Amino acid sequence: MKIGICAPATPFSREDADRVSALAAVHYPDAELVFHKQCFLEKGHFAGTDAKRLEAFVAMANDPAFGAIWFVRGGYGACRIAGDAVGQLKAAARSKTYIGYSDQGNLLAALYAAGIGWPVHGPMPGDIRRAGGEKAVIRALDWLVKANPKSLEKNLKRNEKHVAFNALTLAMIIGTPIMPDLKDHVVLIEEVSEHLYAFDRAMFNITTALKDVGIAGIRLGRVSDIPENDRPFGETAAQITKRWCAKNGIEFLGAADIGHDIDNKVVPFGMLA
Amino acid sequence: MKIGICAPATPFSREDADRVSALAAVHYPDAELVFHKQCFLEKGHFAGTDAKRLEAFVAMANDPAFGAIWFVRGGYGACRIAGDAVGQLKAAARSKTYIGYSDQGNLLAALYAAGIGWPVHGPMPGDIRRAGGEKAVIRALDWLVKANPKSLEKNLKRNEKHVAFNALTLAMIIGTPIMPDLKDHVVLIEEVSEHLYAFDRAMFNITTALKDVGIAGIRLGRVSDIPENDRPFGETAAQITKRWCAKNGIEFLGAADIGHDIDNKVVPFGMLA
Repeated sequence: MKIGICAPATPFSREDADRVSALAAVHYPDAELVFHKQCFLEKGHFAGTDAKRLEAFVAMANDPAFGAIWFVRGGYGACRIAGDAVGQLKAAARSKTYIGYSDQGNLLAALYAAGIGWPVHGPMPGDIRRAGGEKAVIRALDWLVKANPKSLEKNLKRNEKHVAFNALTLAMIIGTPIMPDLKDHVVLIEEVSEHLYAFDRAMFNITTALKDVGIAGIRLGRVSDIPENDRPFGETAAQITKRWCAKNGIEFLGAADIGHDIDNKVVPFGMLA
Repeated sequence: MKIGICAPATPFSREDADRVSALAAVHYPDAELVFHKQCFLEKGHFAGTDAKRLEAFVAMANDPAFGAIWFVRGGYGACRIAGDAVGQLKAAARSKTYIGYSDQGNLLAALYAAGIGWPVHGPMPGDIRRAGGEKAVIRALDWLVKANPKSLEKNLKRNEKHVAFNALTLAMIIGTPIMPDLKDHVVLIEEVSEHLYAFDRAMFNITTALKDVGIAGIRLGRVSDIPENDRPFGETAAQITKRWCAKNGIEFLGAADIGHDIDNKVVPFGMLA
């Protein structure tokens, strides 16, 4: 399987790309990883201009040679191209898996809203930079190459629909045309590096906006690296989520095994067959 | 004029309340400032529980003795009570001015969406804590007591509609029932203490969500106290705003004289008569 890797948000290093390629060569000799050169561009905060990032993604997604598109890492920036990108996709883009998380939730959302391909929340090449990150990278490849069910988040149920998002990313998608219809979906949520008041604010937005959508419930992944505020918030992330769910008549289903870490599991969007 | 002061978000101190009362006594002997005791409660991050904050606001808003409700300060928390609060307002709440900014944009939005009273973006008692903050406090009182046009943001035009919001606050309101219809409105936006990537993300949400609403344009107030990121963003807040406006066919109208500072001007919501 040929896997196309591009960077809709922030840049990657050739050294880290080589590490991921070496790891794949050992464990998945049949997988061919192709890092688009755009992964290594730098333009301010981003892996190249919006035009370059858009072009690289669209080219790879429209290339029938690739069986999957792997987003190289998060950061910030995919929302700047997601709507336009999806509008440029052709037939070949429809029979592909797209995998990533965090900021790449923008592209997963846009693809899912447009009914294009199989968007999947899961580890990215960028996770190689975490201590023990090989484990995460292998988990994503295990899903892409073998559809290994061991990669899946353990609470996913067959014949149920799922999506997974970073909370702030989802809150910023809400109200825009790249927001998918989440009726009947279990929504898995995780967060990193946000104050608890900012997480609370995002959960206000998410649960209030989804109140009448008819979602199947919310599961909470890890909320990590919370900066210390000048005053303690007084609730944990789980308490915040439970309270907002209760207020808006949404079922809180418990914990989810996802987050910005090496244990981040795979969540295919839509019905788990 | 009797002005009711309550704290839908974070607590205030009695010392600062006394300073504001003393200032008002000198400049506006006819104005009677009533600080609800709820302003001085502390519960975790907040000025009392959600129930206490809701109760104080609703009681003052429904009391015909008050001509205006002045939100004591921002912080975070008004979104937790705004929808419920507006649902509990009676006839007496309809003939009042409500003034504040930042996080209190949640209540201003909810009131405006419900067509209740005259929501106004403007300085709060909490601004007394800024160096030279008396100037800001007096500007708000000048508007409340005398409707002094010198308090107004200078770009506001008669027979045009306006609103003013903190960018992150507005982004989190979008998609929820407290979002007002902003058709034909000039939308003034300001921000404080957010990374430029977070401001960019909020402007993605705001301009994309408002693309088809038919707003009259966006003006950008001050974007201040931007934390340094591990990589420079590569654009200013004005460049970010212009780009997102251009992308979504929204007119960028230039600068606005609002922000988290002592020069923050008054912006009455709706048509300036």
